[in-house]
Amino acid sequence: MSGPGDADRAVVLLSGGLDSATALAIARDEGYRCFGLSVDYGQRHRHELDCARRVATAIGLEAHRVVSLDLSGFGGSTLFSGAVPKDEIEPTERGEIPSTYVPARNTVFLSLALGWAEVLGARAIVLGVNALDYSGYPDCRPEYLEAFQRLADLATRRGTQGQTIRIWAPLLRWTKAEIIRRGLELGVDYSLTSSCYDPDPEGVSCGRCDACRLRKRGFAETGRVDPLRYSE
Amino acid sequence: MSGPGDADRAVVLLSGGLDSATALAIARDEGYRCFGLSVDYGQRHRHELDCARRVATAIGLEAHRVVSLDLSGFGGSTLFSGAVPKDEIEPTERGEIPSTYVPARNTVFLSLALGWAEVLGARAIVLGVNALDYSGYPDCRPEYLEAFQRLADLATRRGTQGQTIRIWAPLLRWTKAEIIRRGLELGVDYSLTSSCYDPDPEGVSCGRCDACRLRKRGFAETGRVDPLRYSE
Repeated sequence: MSGPGDADRAVVLLSGGLDSATALAIARDEGYRCFGLSVDYGQRHRHELDCARRVATAIGLEAHRVVSLDLSGFGGSTLFSGAVPKDEIEPTERGEIPSTYVPARNTVFLSLALGWAEVLGARAIVLGVNALDYSGYPDCRPEYLEAFQRLADLATRRGTQGQTIRIWAPLLRWTKAEIIRRGLELGVDYSLTSSCYDPDPEGVSCGRCDACRLRKRGFAETGRVDPLRYSE
Repeated sequence: MSGPGDADRAVVLLSGGLDSATALAIARDEGYRCFGLSVDYGQRHRHELDCARRVATAIGLEAHRVVSLDLSGFGGSTLFSGAVPKDEIEPTERGEIPSTYVPARNTVFLSLALGWAEVLGARAIVLGVNALDYSGYPDCRPEYLEAFQRLADLATRRGTQGQTIRIWAPLLRWTKAEIIRRGLELGVDYSLTSSCYDPDPEGVSCGRCDACRLRKRGFAETGRVDPLRYSE
């Protein structure tokens, strides 16, 4: 399989978190010209959008769009209202989907990326989802991404011409520690990112939600220092 | 297979056009409690959103949401800018996708409906797409809808519990005349709907775009009078 040429474009879903910043760095390293897409969807941790902008500026993108789409009216997630769970045992170990799950979020984000990718003539959509050290969301699993690939091939003009827009999740089967190591190798500045579901008004991470705990554990396993400040 | 019970909810994608109004009437007739979803996506024919509201009021919904999501920044369609084609031969006969195609539109709409459906505990998503008298968009084909069904089953909490949210396109294989006949039987007031891609500032349909021509031909075949006013 040949890699991307200089002219190959990719739309990269950029949340402002550690994973998507690393996925972006990997896509850049593979030669893609990257177009960042972030979504202001009514999340309580809107601070991540500032992080997405900082990551976009630091890594350098062809363009960065922040699309506004308020999903909070639908409700159904503690990322909109109610209490974000803290200090829980891993929901994946209980075989449950946690309350931070936002119904259809990745499907909505991938759909938006698909629309932009088709207009740009992009060959790939890159996303930082991970099915190993993750929160157990159904729309982060490999079989979900395969189903979206099939959908993308049928949904688009490009698909009807026998060309594919590759749905590429380079971190899918990596541990958090592997992600961090690769990102550091590629020069990702993790002080610009934020993983927390429930930061304080200044954007300081809580240190106790699922996302913070996965991140802290990942850094601990690498033996490197997490440059983020945590409340506790 | 048993039909829906009284308590069964459905999210209905409501554009304001003839097809989705008919699909809504069919879903109601089958016993679903219907929740309407419309999207203000930057379309030039925004007049259709007023129509969607009027249809929602006339038919009666549990709720009607109009989500704002500006896709026009992505471009790629004459529904955003440029000239809507008039008096063309059917694009489907040329085997081409017309310039009014909006990249990934149905994927985005279905994704939004999926999120809301999951929160509502809805059993179905109803949409008015049609693969017979239609504009030749790739995301109106049966195989596209089957792929979305598979995606929906993998994407959701409900899916992981072995339950499905049915992606239901009751008009998929009907001619426009069959759609209109069934809608009239069910009492749909087509004067409230608008199909035109390029209405004038007062909302009067152009009569010459693809959507107007399909509608006019459909009414002609039924021998019934189209209650809409056309510029020509």
